[in-house]
Amino acid sequence: MNRIARIASLALAAAVASLSLPASADDAKQEAIKYRQAVFKVVGWNFKPMGAMVKGETPYDKAAFQRMADNLAFASKLALEGFAPGTDALAGETRAKDDIWKKNDDFKSKMAEFEKASAALAQAAQGGDMAAIKPAFGKTADTCKSCHKAYRED
Amino acid sequence: MNRIARIASLALAAAVASLSLPASADDAKQEAIKYRQAVFKVVGWNFKPMGAMVKGETPYDKAAFQRMADNLAFASKLALEGFAPGTDALAGETRAKDDIWKKNDDFKSKMAEFEKASAALAQAAQGGDMAAIKPAFGKTADTCKSCHKAYRED
Repeated sequence: MNRIARIASLALAAAVASLSLPASADDAKQEAIKYRQAVFKVVGWNFKPMGAMVKGETPYDKAAFQRMADNLAFASKLALEGFAPGTDALAGETRAKDDIWKKNDDFKSKMAEFEKASAALAQAAQGGDMAAIKPAFGKTADTCKSCHKAYRED
Repeated sequence: MNRIARIASLALAAAVASLSLPASADDAKQEAIKYRQAVFKVVGWNFKPMGAMVKGETPYDKAAFQRMADNLAFASKLALEGFAPGTDALAGETRAKDDIWKKNDDFKSKMAEFEKASAALAQAAQGGDMAAIKPAFGKTADTCKSCHKAYRED
């Protein structure tokens, strides 16, 4: 079991074990669904204002952009552990397609691409040069779209 | 305007400006509420399994604990920008008390204490010694409780 899978199973085990937490495995699965949705909320909160700056809809603010890019790079590393086995549409309200678990290696590689692109964007943001930021942002956006197309219900 | 306040206002502005986003300032306020709730979901997801390890309910796993402590330390820095002015119970479904904005300096100092305690916990986690981790975890938990008591409806 790799580290992410171990942490996901620990989180589920702790969620079942702890008194202040969901009492059943089903509740734990719902918690995992809510957790990953929360991660994507954090992703969007940081991603969207960067998009507005890249498109010129809001003025480019280097420090703010950097912080959002750093936050995105961090959040990109969190989501995967929320996709524990069995946390599909039968377990709770989610747009996650079954293919996430049927083609799990491909899903994980897409998540890794998102993580890599976000890290590159945070790196580009340090330079403060929109000519470098724009393509890095575009690449990151592509990783979102590609994964959503394959693994998220419309 | 400090950096956090600037980013919060940028996020609200971008949320209003962007086509794929909330169309009104009211919607943007609701987005801010959902954002901070998402951050606290990430906080809880990482905090609770650490608590189970500290209490001995689940076996201590150094690498997993470290990752969760790092995630918590990061998430602790995110929440504040979700508490933009006007994002109170009139703006959406939230347990945030009005005192957050009436006594905003105190609220911010409590959030800073949470951030500081979480960073110290992540530091303690590196040592892998439960004798150091346990009090650092307890201090972090105290910052949660103290802020919830003052600023969150039951």
